[in-house]
Amino acid sequence: MESECLFCKIISGEIPSTQVYRDERVMAFLDITPVAPEHVLVVPLEHLTFLDLVDHSLIGYMALTGDRIASERGIRESGFRLTMNQGEDSGQEIDHLHLHITGGHPLGPIA
Amino acid sequence: MESECLFCKIISGEIPSTQVYRDERVMAFLDITPVAPEHVLVVPLEHLTFLDLVDHSLIGYMALTGDRIASERGIRESGFRLTMNQGEDSGQEIDHLHLHITGGHPLGPIA
Repeated sequence: MESECLFCKIISGEIPSTQVYRDERVMAFLDITPVAPEHVLVVPLEHLTFLDLVDHSLIGYMALTGDRIASERGIRESGFRLTMNQGEDSGQEIDHLHLHITGGHPLGPIA
Repeated sequence: MESECLFCKIISGEIPSTQVYRDERVMAFLDITPVAPEHVLVVPLEHLTFLDLVDHSLIGYMALTGDRIASERGIRESGFRLTMNQGEDSGQEIDHLHLHITGGHPLGPIA
């Protein structure tokens, strides 16, 4: 845990969130500034920042967790998007790795 | 291979592309209608469509391949985005699973 990381504080419960899923590897919760009717974040419990330092099985697990959450929230059939930002040009705001799940209406361009 | 799939035809060489990476599991090539200065697609060689039918290790491998390509193309430091669309609301146009890598300038909203 990084003491100043917003997502680590959400994971520990120090900052409240609307949790939609949790297991021994990842947690998912509603984005507090949603950009679509459905906007969920999937984060690893461990504080990781960059993809090149991450086991690829964890990334795949995050994506398939995102897919299951999309199904549970009723947007798998209508369609959804998984997005991972890395670094300044992407608009990444929190340095704790996170996967966005967005959907619930027709989405805009990817970039 | 699906005979009418654009990406299967690119993988087989029937339709030309600008390939940037290929191994025994995935291929990467430039998007022909880029939405950012850098826009590369990573696709599995096998014709797969939906995440729930895909081994999570393959998804993670696609993401880490995307990260390596971002590094090789000089956008890992400046930042980049990985995006996977699933279904109509996401704007998915080709039913062969694909991961977008975008970067090269400040990107817009994720949805």
